[in-house]
Amino acid sequence: MTDRAQAAYGVHSEVGRLRKVLVCRPGLAHRRLTPTNADGLLFDDVMWVENAQRDHADFVNKMRGRGIEVVELHEVLAETMADSRARSWLLDRKITANEVGLGLIEPTRAFLESLSPAQLAEHLIGGLSTSELPEELRPPYIALARESSGAREYLMPPLPNTLYTRDTTCWLYGGLTLNPLYWPARHDETLLMKAVYAYHPDFVGSRVWWGDPDEHWGQATFEGGDIMPVGNGVVLMGMSERTSRQAITQVARALFADGAAERVVVAGMPKLRSAMHLDTVFTFADRDVVTLYPRIMDAVHTFSLRPGGGESGLELEDHGSAAFTDVVAASLGLSGLRVIETGGDEYASERQQWDSGNNAVALEPGVVMTYDRNTQTNTLLRKAGIEVITIVGAELGRGRGGGHCMTCPIIRDPVDF
Amino acid sequence: MTDRAQAAYGVHSEVGRLRKVLVCRPGLAHRRLTPTNADGLLFDDVMWVENAQRDHADFVNKMRGRGIEVVELHEVLAETMADSRARSWLLDRKITANEVGLGLIEPTRAFLESLSPAQLAEHLIGGLSTSELPEELRPPYIALARESSGAREYLMPPLPNTLYTRDTTCWLYGGLTLNPLYWPARHDETLLMKAVYAYHPDFVGSRVWWGDPDEHWGQATFEGGDIMPVGNGVVLMGMSERTSRQAITQVARALFADGAAERVVVAGMPKLRSAMHLDTVFTFADRDVVTLYPRIMDAVHTFSLRPGGGESGLELEDHGSAAFTDVVAASLGLSGLRVIETGGDEYASERQQWDSGNNAVALEPGVVMTYDRNTQTNTLLRKAGIEVITIVGAELGRGRGGGHCMTCPIIRDPVDF
Amino acid sequence: MTDRAQAAYGVHSEVGRLRKVLVCRPGLAHRRLTPTNADGLLFDDVMWVENAQRDHADFVNKMRGRGIEVVELHEVLAETMADSRARSWLLDRKITANEVGLGLIEPTRAFLESLSPAQLAEHLIGGLSTSELPEELRPPYIALARESSGAREYLMPPLPNTLYTRDTTCWLYGGLTLNPLYWPARHDETLLMKAVYAYHPDFVGSRVWWGDPDEHWGQATFEGGDIMPVGNGVVLMGMSERTSRQAITQVARALFADGAAERVVVAGMPKLRSAMHLDTVFTFADRDVVTLYPRIMDAVHTFSLRPGGGESGLELEDHGSAAFTDVVAASLGLSGLRVIETGGDEYASERQQWDSGNNAVALEPGVVMTYDRNTQTNTLLRKAGIEVITIVGAELGRGRGGGHCMTCPIIRDPVDF
Amino acid sequence: MTDRAQAAYGVHSEVGRLRKVLVCRPGLAHRRLTPTNADGLLFDDVMWVENAQRDHADFVNKMRGRGIEVVELHEVLAETMADSRARSWLLDRKITANEVGLGLIEPTRAFLESLSPAQLAEHLIGGLSTSELPEELRPPYIALARESSGAREYLMPPLPNTLYTRDTTCWLYGGLTLNPLYWPARHDETLLMKAVYAYHPDFVGSRVWWGDPDEHWGQATFEGGDIMPVGNGVVLMGMSERTSRQAITQVARALFADGAAERVVVAGMPKLRSAMHLDTVFTFADRDVVTLYPRIMDAVHTFSLRPGGGESGLELEDHGSAAFTDVVAASLGLSGLRVIETGGDEYASERQQWDSGNNAVALEPGVVMTYDRNTQTNTLLRKAGIEVITIVGAELGRGRGGGHCMTCPIIRDPVDF
Repeated sequence: MTDRAQAAYGVHSEVGRLRKVLVCRPGLAHRRLTPTNADGLLFDDVMWVENAQRDHADFVNKMRGRGIEVVELHEVLAETMADSRARSWLLDRKITANEVGLGLIEPTRAFLESLSPAQLAEHLIGGLSTSELPEELRPPYIALARESSGAREYLMPPLPNTLYTRDTTCWLYGGLTLNPLYWPARHDETLLMKAVYAYHPDFVGSRVWWGDPDEHWGQATFEGGDIMPVGNGVVLMGMSERTSRQAITQVARALFADGAAERVVVAGMPKLRSAMHLDTVFTFADRDVVTLYPRIMDAVHTFSLRPGGGESGLELEDHGSAAFTDVVAASLGLSGLRVIETGGDEYASERQQWDSGNNAVALEPGVVMTYDRNTQTNTLLRKAGIEVITIVGAELGRGRGGGHCMTCPIIRDPVDF
Repeated sequence: MTDRAQAAYGVHSEVGRLRKVLVCRPGLAHRRLTPTNADGLLFDDVMWVENAQRDHADFVNKMRGRGIEVVELHEVLAETMADSRARSWLLDRKITANEVGLGLIEPTRAFLESLSPAQLAEHLIGGLSTSELPEELRPPYIALARESSGAREYLMPPLPNTLYTRDTTCWLYGGLTLNPLYWPARHDETLLMKAVYAYHPDFVGSRVWWGDPDEHWGQATFEGGDIMPVGNGVVLMGMSERTSRQAITQVARALFADGAAERVVVAGMPKLRSAMHLDTVFTFADRDVVTLYPRIMDAVHTFSLRPGGGESGLELEDHGSAAFTDVVAASLGLSGLRVIETGGDEYASERQQWDSGNNAVALEPGVVMTYDRNTQTNTLLRKAGIEVITIVGAELGRGRGGGHCMTCPIIRDPVDF
Repeated sequence: MTDRAQAAYGVHSEVGRLRKVLVCRPGLAHRRLTPTNADGLLFDDVMWVENAQRDHADFVNKMRGRGIEVVELHEVLAETMADSRARSWLLDRKITANEVGLGLIEPTRAFLESLSPAQLAEHLIGGLSTSELPEELRPPYIALARESSGAREYLMPPLPNTLYTRDTTCWLYGGLTLNPLYWPARHDETLLMKAVYAYHPDFVGSRVWWGDPDEHWGQATFEGGDIMPVGNGVVLMGMSERTSRQAITQVARALFADGAAERVVVAGMPKLRSAMHLDTVFTFADRDVVTLYPRIMDAVHTFSLRPGGGESGLELEDHGSAAFTDVVAASLGLSGLRVIETGGDEYASERQQWDSGNNAVALEPGVVMTYDRNTQTNTLLRKAGIEVITIVGAELGRGRGGGHCMTCPIIRDPVDF
Repeated sequence: MTDRAQAAYGVHSEVGRLRKVLVCRPGLAHRRLTPTNADGLLFDDVMWVENAQRDHADFVNKMRGRGIEVVELHEVLAETMADSRARSWLLDRKITANEVGLGLIEPTRAFLESLSPAQLAEHLIGGLSTSELPEELRPPYIALARESSGAREYLMPPLPNTLYTRDTTCWLYGGLTLNPLYWPARHDETLLMKAVYAYHPDFVGSRVWWGDPDEHWGQATFEGGDIMPVGNGVVLMGMSERTSRQAITQVARALFADGAAERVVVAGMPKLRSAMHLDTVFTFADRDVVTLYPRIMDAVHTFSLRPGGGESGLELEDHGSAAFTDVVAASLGLSGLRVIETGGDEYASERQQWDSGNNAVALEPGVVMTYDRNTQTNTLLRKAGIEVITIVGAELGRGRGGGHCMTCPIIRDPVDF
């Protein structure tokens, strides 16, 4: 495949026809989740991994059944690792004195180089513990490593949050961002994605607006769950615990500099675990239909960034007490948005938001995928004329992410406004 | 002053005559501690800052009264900032798009450049909040910054843990380490110290074994509270929550490569907040006298690192079930250590350890400074012939550090074994 | 029905044929669980209630299919409430100035008296919030109640842990205990059960060894998950966070005084959430087969209580370092127990214990019910010749209880040893 | 002494001349506080007990120096315990099968009966651990007790919060309440106070409006820190985490029934640890001067209770958005209150509120005692003409209580409005 492929890559709306998407199936990383380590790995509970895999396969299958090309991270990473330059690039960054520790670099690297590309990809995503190093490769230094506890017993950390491919990279119109993620437990995800975009033949040559895991980003953290390229030259960005103004302003400037966007609408979010990303409380179901959780969205303070002069290259507009949905509608040239609130009484709606009830991913205008368990919100969507395709959320939802979180669109059509 | 000064710098023991030491008085950073932010800044409670300053001044005064040269961080940083190259070096790293955010860089830098060196030093240590930017310099972007919460309302974060100068840098025999600290809330401390060592005439030319805040250290974190250059070519290192094997092995190799040390004795510590550093449960009071908290120290697993071959340049010895104190004694050529345990019944000893009862700093062999509140441990030290000079710990101790934590020795004599 | 019915009631083993059992289906109480209140109600996560009900119905159905008489708490409580004496007895205790508050007693009682027995039972288990009081009955005092937050917005608290009928009462051979439960969130469960045992025609006349919700038990708390009448005159009791020695000794004395048992074997448990009850880490699958979680059970300290003289009427034997399983085997006259440990590697076994993998309930010797998700432990049980009937645990297991927790045996046959 | 003494007892205002007051000095209970148990005992940090005792003695001394009669709980409890009827009454309630456990009742009681009244009082307040039972009295059952952990290793629990005598009982005009306290860790305090009021010659015959530790109060919890008999027939009551509407309405009815008060003004407080009682954010310094923390007080929702008809005997007025201070002023016939807010910038004021800066206790109109550390609030009070007498708060304040919390007025004069 050639660079012409990438020329076609791009996400031009939240609800236009989805043509190509990246997902990551549950696997080794999730088999390592236990009650004592789940918190540190950002999961609320442990998973029955086999069932999560079954439910994820159904999710993928339903998308493929509608003609969407679904790329799976283990596979694409394995293909990438088949290229020895890519393997060297990545292992040079993972198997270091700072991460693996002196005395363990050589045996760890030797073991990883001995694996097939698929096995290597599995450990890059699923982690490598000291006990997985073959007996004959274990140096005496292992005793020191074992005395250290917690995440450090790993020679490579498990990355269970790769399940939420949405966050790690974002296609925004014709280019992408390689995101510096907020929690240290997720930092290495971006390194894997850079290897893919730098070396995999289907992805090499993709245009990168911003972000590079080889640099250090300080407070400029950025997660795709907060970012929505809604079309009409507009990008919505949730300013949340995880996505900072330091990053938002840099990405806005980069998009404006390239003419890739003309306006960023910023949703100043309350800093709550239940509203960790904009897409946990607000997603699009059709060109003018959104599903949202009012108890959080009513507290949003909205700003707009547009190209400007001065040091920052930005101009800021403070929308004061205007409703976020009204600002968004106006930015799209719509007179208003049709709003479908989380369903049920005050108990049920809080529970459904928590269970990713508002985290819909659109496959085309008016067709979304959601979890089965949010029956009341799903019913409201259907009553509004939305086609709702459900998947089982009993296991997949335990990391607090739904269909929107589990998909990173690579090609999505624009919609007309 | 010339490089001859630095030629004399060095710390050759834990209890030899202390000649020059770095401290940092409480100040603006501590005035910002509140019940809601104290945790994030690693303090257990808020402080009465004026009294903490009084008690710290008494601490400094008592050391000066014994002929010790005491260097204070605000002062030495102010002197450093008087050099415009140093100011540029530091502000180029602090006032960036990643930290301050686009749109706020110019006004923040303009404000800081307008300050006197002393005022600048105060804000570098004490932080700068958006509300401290003068009215006329506040751009519209400030609204975005204010919408963000928590630590991000700061343009420069407060660094209250500079109070514990012990951790940020360590003189180990004739050179020093610039430590990558474990908690993000402390990262910028090392940047300040590098500015001092790179530009201040009294410090420029100091030899650096390891560490550089311009690099990224990953899991290789290292804090001085875990590190003790006890003499006889030996360095003790606590492998703790905050000081990792990844760092210990790198520092050991650097010391061995230079012939600065011949052996590192590693104390594998339980990962507990009450035992966050080796010096919170184990310090020296005389050449062969230590004070320790047995409930933690009895659980230590001891290793030795010596120069070796192979990739790591290290050789590891696992001391198995041998007592840490026995290994240390042997490494110093002593037949044993005299051990003074934390005093009092099981309630009092737990409390005194918590209140830094074992965190003594020696001014010379057999003379230590400790907090007044640990009366039972102090009495036991005195009964063992140690001269104990007390300071008031009611406020200073609330960040869980005592005399050892609050001092970074720069010149300390060797002792004979 | 007459007292002859109760004469037959009794639980004479852990694995003999189960003939009659009490369960409680998920319902209104679980529809009230939200991310913000789940913790206070002792649940780790919210539930999809409809699916939990489906899975519970399957559980009941499978038991009934094997000829077991299954009594459901909503139904039996509704039948009890049909008796006006029972209704008065219970509402006099629930609708009081101390619980409902002055000004709300009359309208609350009036509303509850207006309900059908089934509706009343639903609210007794599921709780009653101020907003459920009909408009015309709401007095001005409701404003004060609404200003109060949390559980206090309820006029009657929801009792979602009734799902775990095992804990609230225990049949021990020919009589039962009405247990004072550890957490305030569960106290009212015992009140409901006393109403049933005092007034329902099928239960009135049952013999009560110990416990009465009209009394105050202080630290004497007792939960059925810790209690196992294994036969041969022996009762196993876990001394845990929730079951105290103050209760264990009283129950032991009561059983001995009546000749109902001859020995109580006490398992001194570590105080951990993951080992909240003995039956979360240890259950019987056959007369001499147990499934257990070794990481917890290896730390158990075992004692025996037998009838004795003196104030306590008890004699204590400290089994020191003897294994719990060995003491239990000897108490049953067996040479040993066959032990099936939680399956899988160290990650999987920790996860399966957490997911109630050891929480099997026997229907007859060698036939148990467990959750489907603990595939590895289930496989080990099957390899040992145990028949394993599975139910879906995705929703039911989120309160950390399995088949053993969800059943309160009322009639179970003895087994021979 | 005769009942005439008690006839004079009564508290008729918040700021009238204080004539007699109950305090409790720090002691054995505080020597038991450690970092691991402090939380469970409701303290934020451990104390240097000797210094806390010194500072408390200074507090008492300053009150006595102004002619106030100060009663100390250890002393008055020792005097009470000298009466064998009182001793039996109390030990019958403390040394029970539910608390101490079968097998330990006789030796525990034997030991306590062997003590002098002063020693007994010290253990009643300070607790009794199993290791304090003399060797010759320790039965084998002690092994079972030791296997149990946490608070249960005590035969009688330590009661460090007796330091805050304000909460346990309240004199409201001519009678008192014996308060059911919110946290189990404090329940036994009320039992001690009932022994004093029932048997001590200086207190016997005191009129009790409400409350009795022999009864069970459910959600009707009531703590003196929320209660202020301000005069003019009015009582202020904070409805907080710890003081419930269930209790407030009962006490109001009892006061109205006796004509002891005509109105209760209820402050609906946010449920926050920093605002645990009304007096942590609002106290009187003079007849029309209050010191308050606006960030909390601005969120208060105010109600009034007055005598009424119906089931409750109460009439409720909802003051809607009216300011609490305005309602209070009007209730006292004042045109307004002079308000002194917590001093300092936003950091300092949050810190001072936390350090009990608003927790002043008036000795007479315009004369208050506060902690030294809240210098800015103290300065504002002084500028407003208030005489401020300071005591050292470094140790005493660590349980989050100041002068108001540490005093239970027994005789206080009315003031004119």
